[in-house]
Amino acid sequence: MTLQLSAIRKSFKGIDGLLVTDVNNIRYLTGFSGSSGFLLIARKRNIFVTDFRYREQAETGINGWDVVIEKGERARTILKLSRMLGIKRLGFEVSVSYEFFRRLLKKGLVMKPFKNVIEKLRAIKDDEEIGLIKMAVRRAEAAFLDVRPYIREGVSENKLARMLEERLKKKGCSCIPFGIIVASGRNSSMPHARASEKRLNGGDLVVIDWGGEAGGYFSDMTRTLLIKGVDMGKKKEIYQTVLEANKKAVSVISPGMESKKVDNSARYVIKKAGYGEFFGHGTGHGVGLQVHELPNIARNGKGTIKENMVFTIEPGIYVPGLGGVRIEDMVAVNKRRAVLLTKLPRELEII
Amino acid sequence: MTLQLSAIRKSFKGIDGLLVTDVNNIRYLTGFSGSSGFLLIARKRNIFVTDFRYREQAETGINGWDVVIEKGERARTILKLSRMLGIKRLGFEVSVSYEFFRRLLKKGLVMKPFKNVIEKLRAIKDDEEIGLIKMAVRRAEAAFLDVRPYIREGVSENKLARMLEERLKKKGCSCIPFGIIVASGRNSSMPHARASEKRLNGGDLVVIDWGGEAGGYFSDMTRTLLIKGVDMGKKKEIYQTVLEANKKAVSVISPGMESKKVDNSARYVIKKAGYGEFFGHGTGHGVGLQVHELPNIARNGKGTIKENMVFTIEPGIYVPGLGGVRIEDMVAVNKRRAVLLTKLPRELEII
Repeated sequence: MTLQLSAIRKSFKGIDGLLVTDVNNIRYLTGFSGSSGFLLIARKRNIFVTDFRYREQAETGINGWDVVIEKGERARTILKLSRMLGIKRLGFEVSVSYEFFRRLLKKGLVMKPFKNVIEKLRAIKDDEEIGLIKMAVRRAEAAFLDVRPYIREGVSENKLARMLEERLKKKGCSCIPFGIIVASGRNSSMPHARASEKRLNGGDLVVIDWGGEAGGYFSDMTRTLLIKGVDMGKKKEIYQTVLEANKKAVSVISPGMESKKVDNSARYVIKKAGYGEFFGHGTGHGVGLQVHELPNIARNGKGTIKENMVFTIEPGIYVPGLGGVRIEDMVAVNKRRAVLLTKLPRELEII
Repeated sequence: MTLQLSAIRKSFKGIDGLLVTDVNNIRYLTGFSGSSGFLLIARKRNIFVTDFRYREQAETGINGWDVVIEKGERARTILKLSRMLGIKRLGFEVSVSYEFFRRLLKKGLVMKPFKNVIEKLRAIKDDEEIGLIKMAVRRAEAAFLDVRPYIREGVSENKLARMLEERLKKKGCSCIPFGIIVASGRNSSMPHARASEKRLNGGDLVVIDWGGEAGGYFSDMTRTLLIKGVDMGKKKEIYQTVLEANKKAVSVISPGMESKKVDNSARYVIKKAGYGEFFGHGTGHGVGLQVHELPNIARNGKGTIKENMVFTIEPGIYVPGLGGVRIEDMVAVNKRRAVLLTKLPRELEII
């Protein structure tokens, strides 16, 4: 993390120290996976602070950081340490709560917002991180293939979600990144339905959105299947449109491209087919220690695509009354283009 | 929720509307379980705002609230709706991020912090909520009893955690409130260790901390077992001390009592036995839609115990090098005293 720390210090503007409170940023910089702690990065020292509960984990596991065990009020600890380190203006992450920010101000600290620097570093993955993400993808795919034979008429969404989660754990995932979505029939037209007691029926589009984990890194993917029934023509048409949008977006990606142009290329395919109003979310998002992180591949997404970014491409069409389709893959960007990390077939499976 | 809404409006001081952004408070007031949305409570109208992805869930599921589907920037939507509702000073929850708060200020909204009003309402449960929490406790207990025969020398912490999680799902829990802790031997002396590949050995204290769910409400409990081996006398002594502290705290609870006095009664037992420095966390916390909510039963806990509060009592002693013990039960407070919701035996089991 020496490189990252020096990049962070280089971005100090008008501050001489930084308070890091975001748990994912803490994990990224230190490897610490507990839920309580913060970092103080001064010009010449790195201090990791946690409480009593994590004393052993911190003392045995955090290299390159001085460990301090906090007692009593956190704001007071921050004030004392800042003085000790000679920090006059303290940068803070804007994700901190209003309440905590106010408490620090009241202690007399001079506070300056510090935004997205660590998040932008996190968006560019190193080889080890990409390796872990690939493992998280493989585990998710293996779990899905185990469950695939059970996806048929009559089984409940909840049962499929439960099976998939069990298989993910068996494949080695120590946690899952989000509640698995199994949304069939009318539920499939709600992009963020979870899973319910509803059973799969003839004619249902079945959207399954799930992810795996490996070494703290996540994966995220979606497949949509179709059960034989009414309105097959329309449903196939939607599927093909989404698939075309997905392929188009993946194919245009290259380092240096504006991320909103990637979104636009998927959106254009869907618009042209007449479904523009039924694609209400962004085309993709970065995945790493969090399942949603930078870059933001959306109409209003900022910044450009960079080598070693890892993100999803997940266009969708959701037609109330008919159903929804989403096809979500993960890609990693190399020197020239995007490479699919997700290997599961994307052709429509009709059951 | 009519009573709760009128209590909220009565607490309006210097504001004529309230922005509710905390997902648990939104769920409490509307039943909406999605992850994106907010509430605007004006003097005479209740508006629930969510985005495209939740349109169907919102339109079919939220009674007593006008549903608005937001498009574009959230801060702008809040500004427009506030103007429409004649809100001049808008209360906001202090859990909101600094970043979002700044964005609203920049729009020209007059913002006033609004703290803990809904959280305090949530701390007092109604019959339906207590019924769901009891169900969450029963599910957690049933899952534990299924796994109990597998707790023995040689099994890994991870395997036990995985089995327990699978059983929780089988008993009907749609999610679990937190990553299950199975901490044995030296791991047991870290109160918030998770579970590892470590196998249970002779002489290990084994701390298992897990919870269940029912209808969105959680339960939380901990049991500690002991595997035959060295230092049995010392380990039994710690166990008996923690058990005595737990029983003492449960027995003193009554409505009107200061919550820090409950903490003090458990802490006193542990101090008197000479283990004061090894009990570094609070004695308990409320449980409901969140696994940690009000009341805070701790040395610096504020407020008093009230009828129909539901919380944990979980003293612990953690001795580096020897191991840890925690015994955590849930109680509900009636007109006179605390009633144990957790029914699992608390006597030391030696394996």
